[in-house]
Amino acid sequence: MTNPILVEVTRGARVESRHRGAVAVLDADGDVVLSLGDVERPIFPRSAVKAIQALPLIESGAAERWGLTDAEIALACASHSGEPAHVAGATAMLAKAGRDETCLECGTQWPMGEAPSRALAAAGQRPTSLHNNCSGKHAGFVCLACGLGEEPRGYIGAEHPVQRAVRGALEDLTGAPHTPDRLGIDGCSIPSYAVPLSALARGFARFGAGLGMGAERARAAARIRKAVAAHPFMVAGTGRLDTRLMERLGERAFTKTGAEGVYCAALPELGLGIALKCDDGGTRAAEVAMATLVGRFLDLGDPDEAAVEALARPVLKNWNGIEVGRVRAVTPLAEG
Amino acid sequence: MTNPILVEVTRGARVESRHRGAVAVLDADGDVVLSLGDVERPIFPRSAVKAIQALPLIESGAAERWGLTDAEIALACASHSGEPAHVAGATAMLAKAGRDETCLECGTQWPMGEAPSRALAAAGQRPTSLHNNCSGKHAGFVCLACGLGEEPRGYIGAEHPVQRAVRGALEDLTGAPHTPDRLGIDGCSIPSYAVPLSALARGFARFGAGLGMGAERARAAARIRKAVAAHPFMVAGTGRLDTRLMERLGERAFTKTGAEGVYCAALPELGLGIALKCDDGGTRAAEVAMATLVGRFLDLGDPDEAAVEALARPVLKNWNGIEVGRVRAVTPLAEG
Repeated sequence: MTNPILVEVTRGARVESRHRGAVAVLDADGDVVLSLGDVERPIFPRSAVKAIQALPLIESGAAERWGLTDAEIALACASHSGEPAHVAGATAMLAKAGRDETCLECGTQWPMGEAPSRALAAAGQRPTSLHNNCSGKHAGFVCLACGLGEEPRGYIGAEHPVQRAVRGALEDLTGAPHTPDRLGIDGCSIPSYAVPLSALARGFARFGAGLGMGAERARAAARIRKAVAAHPFMVAGTGRLDTRLMERLGERAFTKTGAEGVYCAALPELGLGIALKCDDGGTRAAEVAMATLVGRFLDLGDPDEAAVEALARPVLKNWNGIEVGRVRAVTPLAEG
Repeated sequence: MTNPILVEVTRGARVESRHRGAVAVLDADGDVVLSLGDVERPIFPRSAVKAIQALPLIESGAAERWGLTDAEIALACASHSGEPAHVAGATAMLAKAGRDETCLECGTQWPMGEAPSRALAAAGQRPTSLHNNCSGKHAGFVCLACGLGEEPRGYIGAEHPVQRAVRGALEDLTGAPHTPDRLGIDGCSIPSYAVPLSALARGFARFGAGLGMGAERARAAARIRKAVAAHPFMVAGTGRLDTRLMERLGERAFTKTGAEGVYCAALPELGLGIALKCDDGGTRAAEVAMATLVGRFLDLGDPDEAAVEALARPVLKNWNGIEVGRVRAVTPLAEG
């Protein structure tokens, strides 16, 4: 099955590049609202499932025990840009559990954001594991381990109690098997399990509605949704799509990017979950696809409708600020 | 026509992402050696044709008049990483024509390379137009304008004598029309004309063999090939594929990357030209495709064969240095 073209990039009057992919939009019962391309082939969700991976931190009581704030819970779900507030947040989370950055096993990364990366260099500093875009998630894993009374060391391993708990939450919400034959290693070294888009979409519908899970887990999901909606900067960073969408829409849309062109979302008021992947792994196309879907499904009045529409059709400018093209969704992703 | 998958990205035992595209390999007479996908649809060649765009600088006598070195001629064909030697080279070219960076119309860009970008920030500096990856090409345009006795100002315009000369060289080598209906604006603000891959491949076969053009132009092409082969760092930068391929292969392969997944090459000893574009604009796939084709067509002994093979199958490592996957060409790009 050849996936359809979802997004195209124009230059002048011509289409310069094209991105294919698949999209699944489901409700918590598994009913399909929209399906484009092959939504049953397992794909690695990467960082798009961080909010589900954060559920054990809340439902175990660890977040409460260590007194994590909503901003810190949002950071536990983040692919952050490595800006000072992100680094400070991860540092604070570790300190609350009596730990420090030496416990992080995500690896050292220059800040994902270009401007924060240059700012760090301009300050004469070098990056640490705290600058890794996953440091909030990993600080959450350390908090979870300590809350469970487990030694944090080795928490990135598939059979460490932390990853077992994370896997349990993923299996519960998606209903998809997370078995060794579906295993890959993520950029931050934790397991990533390949799951069909249809299962991911249903999982995010459940996550958004608090359905299809136990009461404790549903309360944890609600806490995470509210925390991220209240602190959308912490889940991404300056200028990033997740931050911009949720700064505007608050709890109406939970969205989360992942590497290699994956994007997941929950639209709680509609009871819908969205999961998409661009075949080629292109982030620009995944972003435009997600902004398009949010605008398509939510009934947005002005000025939100215009703002989301602008995010769904970014203008490409060159080094002189001249408009040279656009990125835009095409039919059937955009309504025909 | 749906272009075939050329390159895939693995994670663990699974294919995580896939890149489609088209490839044309032709000789100077236009005979087709390899054709994959739609090679007749016009595509923007972007920076992949900088060496052809540099022909007027040589054949007009401007390069000789201003005493440009081989390193500077290589820089005139570059999409450079903005490293100090690139900046110094562009500065020197402008000075030889009695000009300075205020003549550059490419716009300001932080160095394309992440490390040079951070190094500039660490030095407390801001980028100028000299750091733009196209500054060498633009310095060449200024040298050409001054050599022609023309006012450089406005040299990025399609009807300035500089761009007319550049367009003439492109039309001559590719045999394809460069008409306003095929016009787009490039990242550095000069015209980019959409041309079929088949025409680009034939153009690079001619460029590599010095065939299908006048004697003066053929001498200019030879000068450019030798200059780039002697100074492959100047045409790209530290760790970049063009630099690594030509440091190893010298005059056996002329290769040049372009934005949005375009790559062109000449293999002079075989009389072949190569042009490819990844549909989605992905650079990683274009690089693997080009390295694969160079290894496939050239008869490389050890250790060159192993070195090019390594460039054609890069290992993906995560922030902890753990191998998580590969990028690799698939059949029919890789021989079946």
